[in-house]
Amino acid sequence: MISVEEAQRRVISAFQPIDTETMDLGHLAGRVLAEDVTAKYDQPPFAASAMDGFAVRRQDGDAPRRVIGTAPAGHPFDGRIGPGEAVRIFTGGAIPEGGDAIVIQEEVDRVGDNIHFNPSALEHDYIRPAGLDFAKGTILIPAGKRINARDMALLAAGDVTHAKVRRRPRVAIASIGDELSAPGEARKAGGITASTGYGLSAMITTWGGAPCDFGILPDTAQEIATIADAKAELVITLGGASVGDHDLVQKALGTTDFSLDFWKVAMRPGKPLLFGHLGHTPILGLPGNPVSALVCAILFLRPAIDAMLGTAEQRCSLPQKLKCGCRTITARLKGELPTNDSRQAYLRARLSYAEGGMWAEPFLAQDSSMLSVLAQADALVVRAPGAAAATTGDSVEIIALDGL
Amino acid sequence: MISVEEAQRRVISAFQPIDTETMDLGHLAGRVLAEDVTAKYDQPPFAASAMDGFAVRRQDGDAPRRVIGTAPAGHPFDGRIGPGEAVRIFTGGAIPEGGDAIVIQEEVDRVGDNIHFNPSALEHDYIRPAGLDFAKGTILIPAGKRINARDMALLAAGDVTHAKVRRRPRVAIASIGDELSAPGEARKAGGITASTGYGLSAMITTWGGAPCDFGILPDTAQEIATIADAKAELVITLGGASVGDHDLVQKALGTTDFSLDFWKVAMRPGKPLLFGHLGHTPILGLPGNPVSALVCAILFLRPAIDAMLGTAEQRCSLPQKLKCGCRTITARLKGELPTNDSRQAYLRARLSYAEGGMWAEPFLAQDSSMLSVLAQADALVVRAPGAAAATTGDSVEIIALDGL
Repeated sequence: MISVEEAQRRVISAFQPIDTETMDLGHLAGRVLAEDVTAKYDQPPFAASAMDGFAVRRQDGDAPRRVIGTAPAGHPFDGRIGPGEAVRIFTGGAIPEGGDAIVIQEEVDRVGDNIHFNPSALEHDYIRPAGLDFAKGTILIPAGKRINARDMALLAAGDVTHAKVRRRPRVAIASIGDELSAPGEARKAGGITASTGYGLSAMITTWGGAPCDFGILPDTAQEIATIADAKAELVITLGGASVGDHDLVQKALGTTDFSLDFWKVAMRPGKPLLFGHLGHTPILGLPGNPVSALVCAILFLRPAIDAMLGTAEQRCSLPQKLKCGCRTITARLKGELPTNDSRQAYLRARLSYAEGGMWAEPFLAQDSSMLSVLAQADALVVRAPGAAAATTGDSVEIIALDGL
Repeated sequence: MISVEEAQRRVISAFQPIDTETMDLGHLAGRVLAEDVTAKYDQPPFAASAMDGFAVRRQDGDAPRRVIGTAPAGHPFDGRIGPGEAVRIFTGGAIPEGGDAIVIQEEVDRVGDNIHFNPSALEHDYIRPAGLDFAKGTILIPAGKRINARDMALLAAGDVTHAKVRRRPRVAIASIGDELSAPGEARKAGGITASTGYGLSAMITTWGGAPCDFGILPDTAQEIATIADAKAELVITLGGASVGDHDLVQKALGTTDFSLDFWKVAMRPGKPLLFGHLGHTPILGLPGNPVSALVCAILFLRPAIDAMLGTAEQRCSLPQKLKCGCRTITARLKGELPTNDSRQAYLRARLSYAEGGMWAEPFLAQDSSMLSVLAQADALVVRAPGAAAATTGDSVEIIALDGL
């Protein structure tokens, strides 16, 4: 039985960034950049007014000005501001030649073609210099970043029309066990409905992978070995790897092309975790218990997908990578926790926000069969092996579940 | 000029939950339930073993037991446990008739068909009663919840094959202004690239809407009025609504079927916000500045989409709804902020986590033209009109930007 950190290290080190594809701007949201993307222009492309008002020459002081033209956004004034002259300008309009300050319209008395203002109106210039937001050639978004909605606007502003991203890694899923039936099918005597695949597929999509659910397979080594032909970058099995007479490991080990890396991790829930290769294809065997399987997916599958996507987290040093890969953050405990045993524990908890802090309150019911408690949770509280008893206000590490 | 809260109140009250559609389980992730979904079965469907071990009768004490059969998951033992008898059982296996405790395998010495254990092995029963996770008829997920990955697994476990969800509201987007060009097109003299639509489309998708981007339209009332024919639940215009000589409002007000609700909100960035109806279609006019537009989308468009989806947030009382709709949470300030003026301010900030708390550090550069700063931000720090100066450690309200 190995530690969670050792298991994560072994899983992560089995994956490399996969091949890339070039996508149009409109399809980049949620994808991970395979190379830095740089701005094609300065933004703004020219010195521009930050306000509606009048462009003037500062050196003319507070003398009245004669308005000689107009410069709305997109319609530059075709001339030069001379002594005693001003140009009506609007937010985003290009500063006309000769102008070096904007007098905002609220500060101006306009009489016919003449404007008057106080000296204090020249305290600020209200000019955005060319390149204030970014200069041509600036890295707008670095390689390894997952593109969010705000990045999309930034890429468009930088005139980016397409970018190279990692292909979505294909992840094959097979539920193992003859006690399982699909939702809507008649249940077997003593059997249950297979549920993990639905949650796992949604998580894989969220993490940027392409799930392919093979449904329920009988727990024979032959059937399981066929999944390795799925042309997937990673095969996930659900169940069939527990201790006892009925497990995948012993059977799969019997097949010639299976190599085991590790089996069993010192954690709760989720001990019967398996990792190895079927031929050249990595195989991650998650526990049959849905809660254990989904918690293990967050801890081991997410960093594996990150590694295949070459996300920023995967460019960190290994200790930092483990920290990032698990995305633990600090919160304060609400409630009492006893001393932990020798297995790293992941407790389903609710989060609340008060007094500038985040509070994590573990559910009293932590039975690993209770999927309803996982669905209600906002976070997992991480308890290291042998962690001392803890009480309200103590600092605890958590993994937030939002978006999952 | 009205307050942010008043503007939100008016926008939210213009929308009702829209029509529904029934979707198969596999397509429910990210959708908002239109009605409560209940469990079709107890889970577990029968009393089940929580461990690998041996099912016994507690009343027989620590006497040796004879193993008379096996009960793996999915293969119930077809018989009854009598005095002095035990059944080999595995996690998830149905408890055989007569059995009322599990002795875990780690506590057992097995010699042939006989097992021996100490009295302490009966301290816990390791039995999950039928319905421990949920009982038949229990509400698994309430109406108004957006279905996440964990909910997907829970729905499958409850044998749910389909559910009624809100249709994705159609949101039409038009960028207004003859200074704009699309990414990749030649820029106009004094013009810029239209960028907000790309970010906004991604946000709308994230929030559960169906964006339809009409691209760049000339800023004439006729062109703008045609968008109302788009069969959208909501029309968004970007730009063309600023103060001054060149604005949509005055022109659009001239058309017979436009009715204005409000124009201008006491906020920064984002003052020139417009809301009204073009015929029967609500129209939300966002500022032309991309940062202002995206911040206003978070404050006004997200709750509008929530209202159309009938999300849980929209079932709250109005003050609670405003709080939920904006999703403000409390953090601690890192840095110094001066007294705020009369406009509610939204400062782009970085978040960090330390000492069980969340720390929000506003960027020094807050110019509303700087999209790069918005892309780098993790949160918006909300500053009420007239808020007193604040310093490191003070409590501040923030809106987290993750996922956007």
